[in-house]
Amino acid sequence: MVIKPHGYALWENMQRALDDMFKATGHVNAYFPLLIPRSFLEKEAEHVEGFAKECAVVTHHRLKANPNGPGLIPDPEARLEEELIIRPTSETVIWNTYTKWIQSYRDLPLLINQWANVVRWEMRTRLFLRTAEFLWQEGHTAHATWEEAEEETLTILNECYAKFAEEWMAVPVLKGVKSKNETFPGADHTYCIEALTQDRRVIQAGTSHHLGQNFAKAFGTQFVDKDNTLQYVYATSWGVSTRLIGTLIMAHSDDKGFVCPPKLAPIQVVFVPMGRDEETRAKTIGACEEIASKLKAHGIRVKIDKREKESPGFKYNYWEMRGVPVRVEVGPRDLEAGALPVARRDNGEKVTVALDEVADTCLGLMPEIQQAIYDKALAFREANTRRVDTWEEFEAAFAGEGGPGLIVAHWDGTPETEEIIAEKTKATIRCIPLTPLDPSDLEPGTCVLTGKPSARRVVFAKAY
Amino acid sequence: MVIKPHGYALWENMQRALDDMFKATGHVNAYFPLLIPRSFLEKEAEHVEGFAKECAVVTHHRLKANPNGPGLIPDPEARLEEELIIRPTSETVIWNTYTKWIQSYRDLPLLINQWANVVRWEMRTRLFLRTAEFLWQEGHTAHATWEEAEEETLTILNECYAKFAEEWMAVPVLKGVKSKNETFPGADHTYCIEALTQDRRVIQAGTSHHLGQNFAKAFGTQFVDKDNTLQYVYATSWGVSTRLIGTLIMAHSDDKGFVCPPKLAPIQVVFVPMGRDEETRAKTIGACEEIASKLKAHGIRVKIDKREKESPGFKYNYWEMRGVPVRVEVGPRDLEAGALPVARRDNGEKVTVALDEVADTCLGLMPEIQQAIYDKALAFREANTRRVDTWEEFEAAFAGEGGPGLIVAHWDGTPETEEIIAEKTKATIRCIPLTPLDPSDLEPGTCVLTGKPSARRVVFAKAY
Repeated sequence: MVIKPHGYALWENMQRALDDMFKATGHVNAYFPLLIPRSFLEKEAEHVEGFAKECAVVTHHRLKANPNGPGLIPDPEARLEEELIIRPTSETVIWNTYTKWIQSYRDLPLLINQWANVVRWEMRTRLFLRTAEFLWQEGHTAHATWEEAEEETLTILNECYAKFAEEWMAVPVLKGVKSKNETFPGADHTYCIEALTQDRRVIQAGTSHHLGQNFAKAFGTQFVDKDNTLQYVYATSWGVSTRLIGTLIMAHSDDKGFVCPPKLAPIQVVFVPMGRDEETRAKTIGACEEIASKLKAHGIRVKIDKREKESPGFKYNYWEMRGVPVRVEVGPRDLEAGALPVARRDNGEKVTVALDEVADTCLGLMPEIQQAIYDKALAFREANTRRVDTWEEFEAAFAGEGGPGLIVAHWDGTPETEEIIAEKTKATIRCIPLTPLDPSDLEPGTCVLTGKPSARRVVFAKAY
Repeated sequence: MVIKPHGYALWENMQRALDDMFKATGHVNAYFPLLIPRSFLEKEAEHVEGFAKECAVVTHHRLKANPNGPGLIPDPEARLEEELIIRPTSETVIWNTYTKWIQSYRDLPLLINQWANVVRWEMRTRLFLRTAEFLWQEGHTAHATWEEAEEETLTILNECYAKFAEEWMAVPVLKGVKSKNETFPGADHTYCIEALTQDRRVIQAGTSHHLGQNFAKAFGTQFVDKDNTLQYVYATSWGVSTRLIGTLIMAHSDDKGFVCPPKLAPIQVVFVPMGRDEETRAKTIGACEEIASKLKAHGIRVKIDKREKESPGFKYNYWEMRGVPVRVEVGPRDLEAGALPVARRDNGEKVTVALDEVADTCLGLMPEIQQAIYDKALAFREANTRRVDTWEEFEAAFAGEGGPGLIVAHWDGTPETEEIIAEKTKATIRCIPLTPLDPSDLEPGTCVLTGKPSARRVVFAKAY
């Protein structure tokens, strides 16, 4: 995966906003090694099962000229005594370090995040959603009590991830807890945010894990508490990745391409100046620059597309495909008439605005478009949420291509039933919502597959 | 290498300042893969020699349970057909991509930077200066002409790297060109900035390479120019790394620890409130908060050290070791007297300042300390720069432990002589300065080793 400049600028905006949220909730950044000794990965039993399988294994530290032909080969004399694994996630290397850092309750809590790349060998890749290497942040915190770790996982879920998804990405998300089958390997329980895409599938956009004392026990991380007793540390970990770029694109695109919410857009307002001759172009570009400088003074990210060989129509398409929220068209006749067309990307509306009001109009459109994109996504989710009570209905819902949206159904609570459902329909339990989509979802019923008693409905969907 | 939070905060400040400089000079960020297929590395002959040797080689994509004992082994069935190398630098993977992106002169210049981790297998490591994995930025640009590429390498050298070193890090640097022996493998020529440490050695702090058409020819990167002729692209690459953290520490530390220039300090002003009882502490902390909020309004990064178990003396040492530029001591008697001690980290001076002037004093100290640290480093460099004309003097200069500073001497211009000098004394040519340290350095003379004619003096030193 190569992340091109426009996509990377999106990621930079996401990073900045998330990083501010992490810091506002008391976290600091650090950096831990890319390469994990094999023996670290072997320490936590469930974690091994989940992560030691499909990973990139470094076995040699040198190449040499091939003695039997052209090119290079791994130098047999540079075989590592212990293989190194490119981190698929960093719990093991970080807890190996925390064990050295933590001695006493005064060293706790430890609230650390890292921005990093990770590699998970994927058989089937999908751009931005499932790639062998991806960029992410991973928070790893250490606490004296179970309750404090629980509070941390929920703070990240509510005050960082869900808030970022809804307020910055304009994507409404389901907040919930994962079933045992979908829980992070090595965690006690996993919270998540789940987002609906326009093809009615669901993307797991972020997870926050309560790791209990599992890693502390695997790595011997103990602290002396206030009563001078030796205790194991409680842990959390949480992450979001460049998958968020995929989530954003899949949530908001239309037939013309990407629709970017203003708060994350690398370019928020694009100007297309027109004119066939130098003199006219100087005038229209001058007008763009005047408005652009007013917008820049308000922190708006602007671009004047001065390319000479491309037609206005080409430029409109070009920036529409890239999701720029607002386009201002600056033609010589518009300037003479003293009013410019201002076009919204999200709904295609175009209004003509008096020259000296264009900047204010653009400024006002930023929060308006942000809200409109969110409202549209929320309405789409509501229109694609269904309660299903029979197996026939359930199977029919998942029969087609794409996804059926959110299917809210009863489940008997067993991993076995969840697995049979997944085999038969490719439906997985996305989460058990923290707040039900409807109060009636908390009423008891009978499992859609087995007919056994169910305490409440859960959310099924076809996942990416 | 683990980068702990305080060190990482320093790196974040460095990144922010450098990134702003790159963007101000027209560059954008992108991201390219961590793993490079072996065949890419084989393409540029000199580059192979320089980088394919000591690197991390991924040979398998799966681990499995060891059938003959405990633990995990690389799964023999998951052997990669072609090995992947963890990037030691990204020219090859990036030029493989640029070949697809560049067709016409209208696609040029391409001005891209990436922030990334790289791995170079080092036999002898040294924290922050030479580590197997390090963090860096690497710029990779593509141009239509040799001259434009040359301008780019010099823009980066002068307007980004040297400016950052001097104005942000307060480290005076030598700007120069490398001798052939020290040139980047695959480059036509390499510019560099070199910094003197307090133990009189020299650190290569950043490099900017003119790659000519070498990579374009290796990867077949051609473009149609304005006259409709197919031409090879000219390339540059340039990088600075977490080595800058090492450079900063080695340039400015003293017996009490690190001395951080204010512009990069994660904490610029630390407050140490005192008081044995709750009521007194509430008063001193309240006074700290009042001054701190004034400073924060001016963008100053502050910390109030409210720890209750540690003594003021412990806290003074703690923050001195970490290089915080200014400390404000807030004791109950100081408050009653209406004046607080304000201590400078760089020269240890302490003045007592009227309560309502403390914030202004701190503000004024920021540029003053920044300049003082730079001036001190520059005076140290001048005091440790010597012109040497005989081999006896030269050998004597490099005989001791540590380094002799900058030894400015004549050299006959041949790689052979450079190698013999290095073997005999461990001295290397750090650079041929773009601007001579003294005008007389441009006068001809005779080589310090061979006695052959020399056009000008160059700078020798013991390098880290």
